[in-house]
Amino acid sequence: MKIAILGTGMVGNALGTKLVQLGHDVIMGSRTAGSEAGRDWLKSVGGKARIGAFDEAATFGKIVLDCTNGANSLAALRQAGEANLRGKILIQISNPLDTSKGMPPTLTVCNTDSLGEQIQREFPETRVVKALNTINCAVMVEPSLLSGDHDLIICGDDAAAKTQVTALLGEWFGWKKENIIDLGNISASRGTEMYLALWIRLWGVLGTPHFNIKIVR
Amino acid sequence: MKIAILGTGMVGNALGTKLVQLGHDVIMGSRTAGSEAGRDWLKSVGGKARIGAFDEAATFGKIVLDCTNGANSLAALRQAGEANLRGKILIQISNPLDTSKGMPPTLTVCNTDSLGEQIQREFPETRVVKALNTINCAVMVEPSLLSGDHDLIICGDDAAAKTQVTALLGEWFGWKKENIIDLGNISASRGTEMYLALWIRLWGVLGTPHFNIKIVR
Repeated sequence: MKIAILGTGMVGNALGTKLVQLGHDVIMGSRTAGSEAGRDWLKSVGGKARIGAFDEAATFGKIVLDCTNGANSLAALRQAGEANLRGKILIQISNPLDTSKGMPPTLTVCNTDSLGEQIQREFPETRVVKALNTINCAVMVEPSLLSGDHDLIICGDDAAAKTQVTALLGEWFGWKKENIIDLGNISASRGTEMYLALWIRLWGVLGTPHFNIKIVR
Repeated sequence: MKIAILGTGMVGNALGTKLVQLGHDVIMGSRTAGSEAGRDWLKSVGGKARIGAFDEAATFGKIVLDCTNGANSLAALRQAGEANLRGKILIQISNPLDTSKGMPPTLTVCNTDSLGEQIQREFPETRVVKALNTINCAVMVEPSLLSGDHDLIICGDDAAAKTQVTALLGEWFGWKKENIIDLGNISASRGTEMYLALWIRLWGVLGTPHFNIKIVR
């Protein structure tokens, strides 16, 4: 499958590497073509992938993973290009973290809006599925890293896209269908993004980013 | 133990009733002394408690449980009186939910501040422990209602107060010490209050408010 990863940070690296290992045709996009971070990643996967600017990546990918820094996601997607993203599933992973005022970060948008919604509004013909934003990237690609069942919460306006993403997360990373909770339309991004305020503090207290929540009934 | 419950809503009722059943000397406070909701509750516990205005309740209680409507908590606590709350532990349960603009509610304060912090700032000599705000009141008083272990997240500036609250939650309701996570100082209220945006949507999707999260490592 032709997959575009937007973003050369930790999340893009983890997802990109795993997808290359699975034999997919992966391109990693960045603000500038041939960025140092992109070249480093390409080297780390033995050259078995491509790198390019955001628009090249979005054009190449049949499915697009937004692993950008949340504060820059909209700018990155604009550069990727509305036409190149049209009709495609965008797995929207980034969180609108504002680290400019110190730690712990606050959110650049929350409560009455969310990054997921901002992106879906600006790219109405892209099938945005907010997913994976509630966990560390090591857990994203290997849910079995944690002991026992735990849940992933996704949302989006396009039901078929959510079904497809649920299947892909199973196929790619081993996420069990019964551990993926559909929280509703894209406005539910407010819930999963605002959870970051809790997640970040739990990270501090637990001393590891390798954790997740299980919904107990 | 002399316990003050501030608020006559669903949470105040559930906690008050359980504490009366345990044989504690409970007073339920409301904005006006002898409120209808207060009288109804008093009748429901067979008259084995007291009711009064917020200030009477705060004066009587050796420990105070804030079960008010979050949008009115500060006003209620002002009426309870700073002097009457001085030196006491305040288990601060309410969330700053704004239901005035329809469902799902938003928060009246979040991201860079929280209700827990607002209260601790305004009542610096009260030992505020934010607790129980991440679960439905039926689960608060009976954690065994859910199948399997699940976690309660508390925070506050006063370590001794948190230790005491942890012990009381075990004694009163059966919360196991190992399932109570201390998230740090009162600013961590931002995390547990912002989690409500997720909790409310999970309630809708799960079709029941009787759930909680377990932290899986």
